[in-house]
Amino acid sequence: MSSLTAMLTVKDARGAVDFYARAFGASERSRFGTPTGQIVAGMSIDGLEFFVVDENPDALNLSPQTLGGTSVRMNLIVDDPDEVTAQALAAGAVEVFPIDDQPYGFRQGRVADPFGHHWLIGKPLD
Amino acid sequence: MSSLTAMLTVKDARGAVDFYARAFGASERSRFGTPTGQIVAGMSIDGLEFFVVDENPDALNLSPQTLGGTSVRMNLIVDDPDEVTAQALAAGAVEVFPIDDQPYGFRQGRVADPFGHHWLIGKPLD
Repeated sequence: MSSLTAMLTVKDARGAVDFYARAFGASERSRFGTPTGQIVAGMSIDGLEFFVVDENPDALNLSPQTLGGTSVRMNLIVDDPDEVTAQALAAGAVEVFPIDDQPYGFRQGRVADPFGHHWLIGKPLD
Repeated sequence: MSSLTAMLTVKDARGAVDFYARAFGASERSRFGTPTGQIVAGMSIDGLEFFVVDENPDALNLSPQTLGGTSVRMNLIVDDPDEVTAQALAAGAVEVFPIDDQPYGFRQGRVADPFGHHWLIGKPLD
C-alpha cells in the first residue's frame, strides 16, 4: 500500500484544478478542506497521481510565485508528449524549452504552468 | 508506459543520494551526468521512484536552499511511518510537525531534509 506522490502548492488551488484538467486531462479524485480554509485536491492523469494544495505560509506551504521559482520538476512520461505539450501550451503553460529529441535518449520538452510549477513532458526515444 | 515522478533539485546531489539511502532506504537506480556537470540520479524507495538533481540556476533548476523554501511536499505512504520518521530524523532530517494521528484520517508527520525538501510520512488510519 506504499506510495509516493508530489503535493504542489499553488496560490489558487481551485484554479489549478481547472488548469490541470485542461492542460493534462487531469481529473479531481478527492477534495479536502482544511480547518484554515485551504483545499487539498487529489488529482489523477490517467492514474498518475499528484495533489494540488492552496498556499499557507504559516504551514511552510509556499507557492512558486511566492518563492520566485520551484525546486521540483514534475517528470511526466506519456505516449504522445508532443500532443500533451501542445495541449498544455494551449491551456496557458509557457514553454521553457521546446519538445525535441534530446541527447539523453528522450523526446522531451519543458513547460512552466501558470502557477509556477515546471513539467518535463516526454517519452523514451525508440 | 506512462509515469509521473518528482525531480528534486539540491545543492549536492551526491550527498542527497547518500542521505536518502540512510533516511528512507532509497537505492540509486540510475545516474546520468549532464554536459554542464550536474548529476541526475534516479532513486527508488522499494519501487517508489523519484530523482535527485544538482542545482543549475542557468536551467531554472533551483534548490530549496537557494529559494528559501519549497513549493512541493513529497507525500510518502508506508506501512510503518513511525519507524521511517525515526530513521529520517536519525539520518539528519528535522521535524516540521511530529508524527501523530491526524484529524484528516492519517497517522502522519512531516520532516524537512538537509537539502530543504519536505516529506510527509504517514499511512491511513484504520
